[in-house]
Amino acid sequence: MTDFENLRHSSAHLLAAAVTSLWPEALPTIGPVIENGFYYDFDNLTVSETDFPKIEAEMKKIVKDWKSFEKIEIDAKDAENTFKENPYKLELIEDLSDKEEKITLYKSGDFLDLCSGGHIEDPKEIKYFKLLSVAGAYWRGSEKNKMLTRIYGTAFPTQKELDEYLEQRALAEESDHRKIGKDLNLFVFSDLVGKGLPLLTPKGSVIRRELERFVVDEELKRGYQHVYTPSLAKTELFKTSGHYPYYKETMYPVMKVDEDELILRPMTCPHHFMLYKSAPRSYKELPIKLAEIAPQFRYEKSGELSGLMRVRTFILSDSHIFATKEQATEIIKDVIDLINFLNGKLGFEVGKDYRFRLSLGKRDDEKKFYKDDKAWDFAEKVLRDVLKDIDAPFFEAPGEAAFYGPKIDVQMKKVNGTEETAFTVQYDFVMPKRFELKYINEKGEEVEPIVIHRASIGAFERSMAFIIEKYKGNFPTWLTPVQVKVLPITDRNLDYANRVAKILRDNNIRVEVDERNETLGAKIRNAQNEKVAYMLIVGDKEEKSDAVSERGRSGKDYGVHPLEKFVEDIKKEIEEKSIN
Amino acid sequence: MTDFENLRHSSAHLLAAAVTSLWPEALPTIGPVIENGFYYDFDNLTVSETDFPKIEAEMKKIVKDWKSFEKIEIDAKDAENTFKENPYKLELIEDLSDKEEKITLYKSGDFLDLCSGGHIEDPKEIKYFKLLSVAGAYWRGSEKNKMLTRIYGTAFPTQKELDEYLEQRALAEESDHRKIGKDLNLFVFSDLVGKGLPLLTPKGSVIRRELERFVVDEELKRGYQHVYTPSLAKTELFKTSGHYPYYKETMYPVMKVDEDELILRPMTCPHHFMLYKSAPRSYKELPIKLAEIAPQFRYEKSGELSGLMRVRTFILSDSHIFATKEQATEIIKDVIDLINFLNGKLGFEVGKDYRFRLSLGKRDDEKKFYKDDKAWDFAEKVLRDVLKDIDAPFFEAPGEAAFYGPKIDVQMKKVNGTEETAFTVQYDFVMPKRFELKYINEKGEEVEPIVIHRASIGAFERSMAFIIEKYKGNFPTWLTPVQVKVLPITDRNLDYANRVAKILRDNNIRVEVDERNETLGAKIRNAQNEKVAYMLIVGDKEEKSDAVSERGRSGKDYGVHPLEKFVEDIKKEIEEKSIN
Repeated sequence: MTDFENLRHSSAHLLAAAVTSLWPEALPTIGPVIENGFYYDFDNLTVSETDFPKIEAEMKKIVKDWKSFEKIEIDAKDAENTFKENPYKLELIEDLSDKEEKITLYKSGDFLDLCSGGHIEDPKEIKYFKLLSVAGAYWRGSEKNKMLTRIYGTAFPTQKELDEYLEQRALAEESDHRKIGKDLNLFVFSDLVGKGLPLLTPKGSVIRRELERFVVDEELKRGYQHVYTPSLAKTELFKTSGHYPYYKETMYPVMKVDEDELILRPMTCPHHFMLYKSAPRSYKELPIKLAEIAPQFRYEKSGELSGLMRVRTFILSDSHIFATKEQATEIIKDVIDLINFLNGKLGFEVGKDYRFRLSLGKRDDEKKFYKDDKAWDFAEKVLRDVLKDIDAPFFEAPGEAAFYGPKIDVQMKKVNGTEETAFTVQYDFVMPKRFELKYINEKGEEVEPIVIHRASIGAFERSMAFIIEKYKGNFPTWLTPVQVKVLPITDRNLDYANRVAKILRDNNIRVEVDERNETLGAKIRNAQNEKVAYMLIVGDKEEKSDAVSERGRSGKDYGVHPLEKFVEDIKKEIEEKSIN
Repeated sequence: MTDFENLRHSSAHLLAAAVTSLWPEALPTIGPVIENGFYYDFDNLTVSETDFPKIEAEMKKIVKDWKSFEKIEIDAKDAENTFKENPYKLELIEDLSDKEEKITLYKSGDFLDLCSGGHIEDPKEIKYFKLLSVAGAYWRGSEKNKMLTRIYGTAFPTQKELDEYLEQRALAEESDHRKIGKDLNLFVFSDLVGKGLPLLTPKGSVIRRELERFVVDEELKRGYQHVYTPSLAKTELFKTSGHYPYYKETMYPVMKVDEDELILRPMTCPHHFMLYKSAPRSYKELPIKLAEIAPQFRYEKSGELSGLMRVRTFILSDSHIFATKEQATEIIKDVIDLINFLNGKLGFEVGKDYRFRLSLGKRDDEKKFYKDDKAWDFAEKVLRDVLKDIDAPFFEAPGEAAFYGPKIDVQMKKVNGTEETAFTVQYDFVMPKRFELKYINEKGEEVEPIVIHRASIGAFERSMAFIIEKYKGNFPTWLTPVQVKVLPITDRNLDYANRVAKILRDNNIRVEVDERNETLGAKIRNAQNEKVAYMLIVGDKEEKSDAVSERGRSGKDYGVHPLEKFVEDIKKEIEEKSIN
């Protein structure tokens, strides 16, 4: 990407020149290079994507007269005079004059801009560019400042590279879970409800429910004990845990009612600690693995919200494992195995779709990391040894640990190629002290357990976003909201279609009948747009023989089968959670 | 009960006489008759139930010297003088002197009390009495006042009646869900988490999860569409619905963050309305039955909290049905059928364990009931006709409707014989107007649907309380936290016991092995105390023939069976959700 920086920076100049030529009242502010392109922010400008052809044409026209990027060094005073009608540039000049003696400008054609340099030699090379989108952005990124108009664009040295990039971008846009979620009617937002608070529709809720039951059932099988604890607690609880000062920024405000001060929880751990503490514990019971489908509340800034990926309340597949130090290795191994199993079933392959990050502490940074060198050494070794032992793909990240111990982060690869921490396995030797957690060991002594905090598929909202993007809405059958759509060829076959649907429904298959008075072609197209897993076409021929004509969502014709056989096959596919 | 009022009121005098005789510094305040007994509140008194024998002995001693209850009428001034050392009595005298010219006192033996009368003739009849419990209570019921010590007692004309009552009371106490919940470790409370915020243990969570899946699966079968919506929303949403001023008293306070004002929801309806409004709706789609296992938040006063019966956040089996007026009758019928089905499966019989209350509006009370006589007449007729048509046990309650329409309340009978509204089916013709809900009718016109709000088993917390009390912890097998306990006779049989457990676990049966080095008798007693559904005793004989010796939780011996047969039988029992 670095190779293209000068080209893209130069393109930003050209964009500003074209915009101010077309709309002389527009005030250019800043225009940096970003990943895969550039943008320029303007005040006093109202444009939409429909204006892009006009702006692009103006850019092409202007660049013809540009010979070079000419560097000009002047005094701050002169610079202020040059930009006296643009308060944004004046603010930048003021900042610069604190640090530099001279202010640098660059001139190309008639266009002059405040700029520290980094251009291509020949402006004629700005040939293969494209404006991409327009958005609002606060001046200097602060909500307290004015909202400006940001135009995004990109540029490449060749048409081929530009085309390839635009194609890849279109693909990424197509698999954006926000777009698919809207097209398939999986979730909606409401201004009256609030930002970052998604409402799952009946269809989106099918995916959520199937995921939840899948995770709970598998965890129960593996000895986890699922519990239900309240979404809120007295502020005191989070002061004891230390979350209150530490997470305060993203915690919802305290609610004072009568004698109590309550707060929505940003974490489940303190609640599970209270359950652990509600009875005396013996080494014979350990490890105790409390798990919960746990509602959590964090107030993300509105600029950080994004569909289901980042929300203001989410449900985590959470767990806290109370154990002896000696059990730590085995437990971490089991946890990673569970993570690989669950994610594998969902189609996410370790090493391909995600890898692990071993986040370590720093012994000398006592502010950021709890001081206990021996505990850190031990815990870090446990985590590293497990990752090595099972040959897991991972890298180390010194200084990325939590205050209370090292952790293994699950790093999920996104469609756009970037990596995101999906969730975490946390070794904790601090909270047990804070909450005075104890168990009786074999010698009858009261000692402290360790705690492993872990998610297994992360927040359900975010998992759904990853799943939607991965499958582009073509979900495995067990997760597909409408698994079968029955399409009667004529109204004559409506009764049979409904009989077929009833049999499927009795077998716990999610089915709909397209009863509309439409052509079969229209019904098929509609079912494909809805991305149902299977279409069953039923006409006179099928009706006579208790059969169905089966098609996949891609349109593939699987031929005519006895209904019984179809039911058997799809039940097996759902039962096995097959990916195909 | 009224027959005993004079006796019990007289007993309260005697209690106060005994207490002040034993603890002269104690200040008697008031001592009324209540259902099934009486109490007396004292300031400056610290007693516990261990003091009861002493107090009762003193009462028996004092009453020997009492000849009668002598009425004395004096001026307020003289009364004030008489009680000059008791500020509580002085406060009462002040109130009385506003209304009455003379103040009435009653004297028996040496004991003089402020009292308006209602005694037995001969104090010697106070013979069959019993002190029951001690509790804290605020002076005049207000949290702003001082906490006093309240002693509860009861009295009967005969020993037989007293004995019968005490026996019934012991039974009720035994089936108190708070006691059973503690004994069976189903839920706990934590001071750090807060009042009214129960934490379900792994065992209690089994019941909750089974109930939830049962309700969701049945509702899905019946065409409900389950959704997930957030626990909070902008205050504006509840201002639109009108909940904000109306429910404000029990709503949590507004949380101001950045640009938003958010609040925890006391109701799910506005969220479901937003989902309904997220797409244009046609008459062809109606009825639309949105349902949710919905977290709700209401701030109950601490004095009103009671175990799982009344909490500060709960999960409701909620639904909102959007329909045409013409569909109302059919829908109400279906809803009542669902309620009877779900509750029947849980062992609650309509007519025996619960009945219906038809809560009606009043046409002339426009403040309490939305003014629309025609809509009220129609809706009330729909509800009444359905109840009559299906021959449901119900009674009418004029003036008990909600502001926005008449409702059918499900009145559950509690163990102590009182009746409590468990949940409600609400006909609503007001909210659709407020939220401008619409659908396109057959003529292509935009018209307003009606909304039926309904629960199906109510709040899960409260349902659990009812279920715990009904079964006294001896739950139907499908709801039993530990369904099977395997008891090896000797350590020799431990391997086989674990093999048996594995086979059960693989069949999704919740099983534990008692691996302790205890006698079989001790293991059986322990399993019975834990109220597991079945005990499987395995010794050498059973091991040789892949068999188990089966016992019910009552201790009943079902004999030796092949393990296979036991698995088959219990799976069938669980599958059918049998009650036995």
